[in-house]
Amino acid sequence: MNTSPIIIAVAAVTIDGKIALHAGHSTDWTSSEDKDFLHGLLDKSDVIVVGNNTYKVAQKPLAKRNCVVFTHSVRTTARQHDNLLFCNPSGVDIRTILSPYKTVAVLGGTQTYTYFLENDLLNELYLTIEPLVFGRGLNIFESMTAKEVKFHLFSVKKLNRKGSILLYYRIV
Amino acid sequence: MNTSPIIIAVAAVTIDGKIALHAGHSTDWTSSEDKDFLHGLLDKSDVIVVGNNTYKVAQKPLAKRNCVVFTHSVRTTARQHDNLLFCNPSGVDIRTILSPYKTVAVLGGTQTYTYFLENDLLNELYLTIEPLVFGRGLNIFESMTAKEVKFHLFSVKKLNRKGSILLYYRIV
Repeated sequence: MNTSPIIIAVAAVTIDGKIALHAGHSTDWTSSEDKDFLHGLLDKSDVIVVGNNTYKVAQKPLAKRNCVVFTHSVRTTARQHDNLLFCNPSGVDIRTILSPYKTVAVLGGTQTYTYFLENDLLNELYLTIEPLVFGRGLNIFESMTAKEVKFHLFSVKKLNRKGSILLYYRIV
Repeated sequence: MNTSPIIIAVAAVTIDGKIALHAGHSTDWTSSEDKDFLHGLLDKSDVIVVGNNTYKVAQKPLAKRNCVVFTHSVRTTARQHDNLLFCNPSGVDIRTILSPYKTVAVLGGTQTYTYFLENDLLNELYLTIEPLVFGRGLNIFESMTAKEVKFHLFSVKKLNRKGSILLYYRIV
């Protein structure tokens, strides 16, 4: 029996591929339709993985959910309460940490998305492209080592009239 | 009578928004379907604007087309032959240079796309998203000054089975 979870990265980006203008930038620029999709997906996920910066920005909406927060401020892991585990990905086997779960949603930011990409842990990607350009900002991935990773596009959905679209990819 | 040309940026990007791994990287990673689309669009354009790096990478396929090449190696403009004008965008009024044309295709790279974005010269954007991730590389825009620019998505087209998609935006 295969007990590996399905690990799904979920991100909203601009046309020019930015997840935010800067660390600490809230998601006030994403569409309400994307937020609805995101909440539905989180409802179906068993655990959410976020980096510490993203956790701070989204602490309130994430408080009711089961979270693993990546941080260098602990050596291995530190459980804050039933629904909140701080975890240093350099100090633990993340596959073991996530093995109790069937569905894992990775919400970013850059370092966290990149960790899952570089360690071949990603299975799926939901990418919402909002119809605007920042011209600068934070990339979804910042890898020094990643080789080209091929995906397969399974679906495209228009979320609203202005043209936010939701792309659903799986790793080939 | 309005004689301003329609200025269309055309780019192929990875899922993570990269136009290339590095300067000099050829477009061997884009799909044949995207290349077919691009050639059809260039056939319908009156002039192509490219930066000098992009011109060098694509010199052979561009040789038969009418090109304006952005470069700092000339002070204002230098006409090489009927179909090839070198032009320093800091030294000329680019609107005047392009005013004889009805349709202008901007092919990149980063500096050239960014010039048109920052100077409010873009009208449309054709963006092909190829289903792969580089994890690093060159962004379509690198602006220090651009404010958020809003677009409207007019069409989405699947180009092939693996999931290259073509997005067509206009500036709002």
